[in-house]
Amino acid sequence: MRLAARPVGEIRPEDWEHVTVAAEEPGDGQFAGRTRFISLEPAMRGWLDDRPSYLPPVGLGEVMRAVSVVEVTASRHPGYAPGDHVVGPFGVQERVVSDGRGVHRADLGLAPAPTHLGALGMSGMTAYFGLLDVGALKDGETVVVSGAAGAVGSVAGQIAKAKGCRVVGIAGGPEKCALLTGELGFDAAIDHRSGNVRGALRKHVPDGIDVYFDNVGGAILDAALTRLALRARVVICGAISQYNTTEAVAGPANYLALLVRRARMEGFVVLDYARRFPEAASELAGWIGDGRITVREHVVKGGVDDFPETLGMLFRGENTGKLVLEIA
Amino acid sequence: MRLAARPVGEIRPEDWEHVTVAAEEPGDGQFAGRTRFISLEPAMRGWLDDRPSYLPPVGLGEVMRAVSVVEVTASRHPGYAPGDHVVGPFGVQERVVSDGRGVHRADLGLAPAPTHLGALGMSGMTAYFGLLDVGALKDGETVVVSGAAGAVGSVAGQIAKAKGCRVVGIAGGPEKCALLTGELGFDAAIDHRSGNVRGALRKHVPDGIDVYFDNVGGAILDAALTRLALRARVVICGAISQYNTTEAVAGPANYLALLVRRARMEGFVVLDYARRFPEAASELAGWIGDGRITVREHVVKGGVDDFPETLGMLFRGENTGKLVLEIA
Repeated sequence: MRLAARPVGEIRPEDWEHVTVAAEEPGDGQFAGRTRFISLEPAMRGWLDDRPSYLPPVGLGEVMRAVSVVEVTASRHPGYAPGDHVVGPFGVQERVVSDGRGVHRADLGLAPAPTHLGALGMSGMTAYFGLLDVGALKDGETVVVSGAAGAVGSVAGQIAKAKGCRVVGIAGGPEKCALLTGELGFDAAIDHRSGNVRGALRKHVPDGIDVYFDNVGGAILDAALTRLALRARVVICGAISQYNTTEAVAGPANYLALLVRRARMEGFVVLDYARRFPEAASELAGWIGDGRITVREHVVKGGVDDFPETLGMLFRGENTGKLVLEIA
Repeated sequence: MRLAARPVGEIRPEDWEHVTVAAEEPGDGQFAGRTRFISLEPAMRGWLDDRPSYLPPVGLGEVMRAVSVVEVTASRHPGYAPGDHVVGPFGVQERVVSDGRGVHRADLGLAPAPTHLGALGMSGMTAYFGLLDVGALKDGETVVVSGAAGAVGSVAGQIAKAKGCRVVGIAGGPEKCALLTGELGFDAAIDHRSGNVRGALRKHVPDGIDVYFDNVGGAILDAALTRLALRARVVICGAISQYNTTEAVAGPANYLALLVRRARMEGFVVLDYARRFPEAASELAGWIGDGRITVREHVVKGGVDDFPETLGMLFRGENTGKLVLEIA
């Protein structure tokens, strides 16, 4: 799946081009494989814009960047054999050839393939380092997570619970909120679609927020800023409410709360923590194993043609947990 | 000078009431004094609004809160004798009686009285702890200061120069900019009144900003966010452009630069550092003594009746350096 035009606002089908090319044979030191699951992430929207960011934009005519689980079908690489499942930045395509750079094995005995893209993949890494490293979370603190039913938010909230914190999630709709306080064990959930987030935070977080983990930006970030505890940390993980905007991003009007509350707001890019991924994956696998983290994946079955429409689900809030596209 | 009404937007004369009362005699453990210099600060505007902040609002009918230099005229306090000059939170009034709480001596042999309100007073403390502690400035970094010709900004920029940094100041008008690059030794100055701050930053800070010390908020903060270096620190000291607004504060639309640049934005309140004020004052006095910091004060002579009009000068950018009202 190649990027054909830079989308303005929401992604359109005509921004994409499905090109069929002859499958390559793996050269020496390479393997070939068949894509099984493709990870969909809000950050993908940012990669489509032609402006400087933490990664270069996807070029026009290039295969769309994506992390996926691939089953090795042929190999001249010493580390991988046919039948192996591997995770890597293979892009949105059915068949891949790789020299193994940026690739690691997905242990399907440990967890099913989609989990290696979600809680044990980049989403889990993002939750882990964002909350514990950037947020400097301490046991027993009060944590609020936005986008809490999403891939990153659902893991972040459960990590905070595993650390003995009080955790409030903000999500869209009663089903997601019921999931948060039910299966996922959050202490409270706020449905931002039902109105007054600021009032609900006043009720559920009377003593203020120590760590606010923000995936959404916009009005919800602004509401959270009104409830910061002294020396709070606001972790800027993403701003899904702003990624499709064709107008100026809505900046947080209540940012002066940072001054009044002696608080900080900090952004991060999970790729900076690559060297520590094994440490995080090991701890997350432990929590999944002992039931402290419940994994949620939202699997859409289809082909690479379904990528644009599936990606759009993220921005319409239609997924719960990690959204992956299973290639039939 | 008492607060008679809560101002909406800019301060008006009718928000104030000058009340004459019989001078008190000092009781046991107290001293009486005559106000010589009153400190004017942008933060005062925030103290007039009836909303929670880091200090309670000034109450209607209360003497306006202010730090000033007072000459002791009579004393039954063991620590102070007539003729002593002291600094404390005496408020906007001509005569004061105090039990000495929150008061310290102003050594006029070390520096003239206004300097004890400016570079050696709260303005200097704010610059020192904001830059070195919150901003975690390292020798040789690139620093940008907004409100750079003001009481705090002028000291912050010179501290950064004393630490071997490259320093660019943003100020309003050619006179202030000439002061910055002339007498105060900044490496460059940007006149935000002459237009394109973003473009000027691109020119003067080609490798990005390590520490941005913000006194102004609004469009200038937004411009600075476009030029952050990796792991930059944005110190939120104030937002003078927003204090008189009757509409919503303009939030920094470019705040997602914090994510892309792995940067943080952090607020502080200088009063938290009270225990370390002597340490800072001692280092600042050394830099003033050896000429590395040039002190600028803007002294307006008048009476307490002139307080509202003088305070307004801050928001019109009419002062250069520390603004004080000298009571004739």
